[in-house]
Amino acid sequence: MSQLPEQSAGPSVPTSADVARLAGVSRATVSYVLNDNTTVRISDATRRRVREAAFDLGYVPHAAARSLRAGHSRMVLLPAAQQLPGPLHQRFFTDLQTDLRRLDYTVVQYGSVGLDADEAVRAWAELRPVAVVAPGGVHLTPHRTGVLTRSGAKAVITLGPQPVEGAHALVLDQREVGASAARHLLSRGRRSIGVLMPQDPGLAVFAGPRLAGVLRAVETSGAAARAEPLPLAYEEEPAARLAARWRTLGLDAVIAYDDEYAMLLMRALQDAGVGIPEETAVVGAGDLMLGRLLRPRLTSVRMELAAAQPPAELIDRLIRHPGGPRERHDLLRARTVVRESG
Amino acid sequence: MSQLPEQSAGPSVPTSADVARLAGVSRATVSYVLNDNTTVRISDATRRRVREAAFDLGYVPHAAARSLRAGHSRMVLLPAAQQLPGPLHQRFFTDLQTDLRRLDYTVVQYGSVGLDADEAVRAWAELRPVAVVAPGGVHLTPHRTGVLTRSGAKAVITLGPQPVEGAHALVLDQREVGASAARHLLSRGRRSIGVLMPQDPGLAVFAGPRLAGVLRAVETSGAAARAEPLPLAYEEEPAARLAARWRTLGLDAVIAYDDEYAMLLMRALQDAGVGIPEETAVVGAGDLMLGRLLRPRLTSVRMELAAAQPPAELIDRLIRHPGGPRERHDLLRARTVVRESG
Repeated sequence: MSQLPEQSAGPSVPTSADVARLAGVSRATVSYVLNDNTTVRISDATRRRVREAAFDLGYVPHAAARSLRAGHSRMVLLPAAQQLPGPLHQRFFTDLQTDLRRLDYTVVQYGSVGLDADEAVRAWAELRPVAVVAPGGVHLTPHRTGVLTRSGAKAVITLGPQPVEGAHALVLDQREVGASAARHLLSRGRRSIGVLMPQDPGLAVFAGPRLAGVLRAVETSGAAARAEPLPLAYEEEPAARLAARWRTLGLDAVIAYDDEYAMLLMRALQDAGVGIPEETAVVGAGDLMLGRLLRPRLTSVRMELAAAQPPAELIDRLIRHPGGPRERHDLLRARTVVRESG
Repeated sequence: MSQLPEQSAGPSVPTSADVARLAGVSRATVSYVLNDNTTVRISDATRRRVREAAFDLGYVPHAAARSLRAGHSRMVLLPAAQQLPGPLHQRFFTDLQTDLRRLDYTVVQYGSVGLDADEAVRAWAELRPVAVVAPGGVHLTPHRTGVLTRSGAKAVITLGPQPVEGAHALVLDQREVGASAARHLLSRGRRSIGVLMPQDPGLAVFAGPRLAGVLRAVETSGAAARAEPLPLAYEEEPAARLAARWRTLGLDAVIAYDDEYAMLLMRALQDAGVGIPEETAVVGAGDLMLGRLLRPRLTSVRMELAAAQPPAELIDRLIRHPGGPRERHDLLRARTVVRESG
């Protein structure tokens, strides 16, 4: 550690009275100007003077005090991004944040890393958000949803693979990802499909439904086909072991959890001399750039999030009409982009 | 959209008085029990009764009201994870959150997507955090740091490539990443080094210092060597164009921005018949699994975050002693992991 020049010890917190004094106006005028209240006639010169005084003093209103006065907050709590990884979710959250801000909400992200579900929900409730979007991984029971609504949340919305009783649901139905890949492989005449299952416990909530989607697609196809789960850790050594016994498995296709798992397995299969796609077709998911850089180029399930109404407007509507029926919106669209690997 | 069974309209918010009534104790007792105040003698049976009543009613204390009463909050504001991408930062933030919670802080993440720096700082100040860890990308001027400290923040800490005047600094000095790669290449006799510069504006804050590190390493090496920046968008087409004119550039080595850019360029160079590493050595950064899956295996700069004191303890100390000198802590360690590509 090195020391930089002195930081001044905590100065006194400026108040709206300080702003009023500096600008030479009443506290009520300060409040009208800084809250953008346009029903009161205040000259532009005065508004400018108040804003400059607030800026010079570094005065900002206190969100908590304001929400206590108003009896409700404008805070929307979103799950921290790492709980729903991937570029797809990141873009979704970026857009959602921008749109909610445009609707004048304060967007706060809250991680539940290291907390159990009850602790996480209590921590959320303590912040008195007007709405909570909770990841599918935290199991919102009806009781926990009740804790949030009784603490003042007008809308509790889950975002994840399955809806949860008592809450609105933005559903990313992962079964469609597996089903799309399986339908493609079946249409190409593949009949024995392995499904890579990642061993990261955080991914089980996605991987389980994807496998279910594959199994259902195989069942309903009418073809004499089968699918089986293949556990695989994201490491070179287990991938090499799986590749070494690949021909004993009798599979002619494999659906990887995502493009990175597909790359891991393809490398191991190629190193073991297994022909792709001649002997085994490989399908990834996520349609990342890296799949296009592989040889053969990777066939992959592309996912998109689409909604009839932009999610921010939906959340705003649910907040403003809290008594309505619970809603379910399916956001995930999946289609297989066919390249060379299968 | 489909409709699920009815959600009950906003029930009344339970108060500590409701909990006191149900548990048959005073409001003071409720407050002592739920705030874990152990200086007051209350029987275990009573504590249990209060906790059960609070659970049954779904009562949670109001963080804002509590911080207003106490005159300060326990809220530490962290930047939303997407502003510092990559597994390295994610692990750092996960550990930091867990450790801060253990020290009884409320950790809230705040995205500044779509906000300018002044708006972001005001939004942070409105939440009255006791500490703010701000990403390097948002330029905290001394004025903006002042807005935060005057709103009650005891510690303002930047996390990024450079320190900022007026704030404590956790510095991730990216120059060391470039310098490590360049020193390795120079030691292998490479003398003309291209440095891939990503065109994503969000990465400029990392890419610029990395290039500076390369240039300094070349200058101080004493070798008759040179380095030059090569702009490259993360797309196949521009990579192919760059590869097509590669031999006219007279380079014998290239430092990619990260392993993914290295993969993009390696594929394009190999498709153009450029030998790796014979004609051109390639070094990535990040030491991701995918680099080990490439052929030749990718040489890459591994980054680690290390601190003499765990960052959560450091932040806690800065909060408890707000008048001290500003501190700078360098967290980033970089070393080149040599494989086959250069």
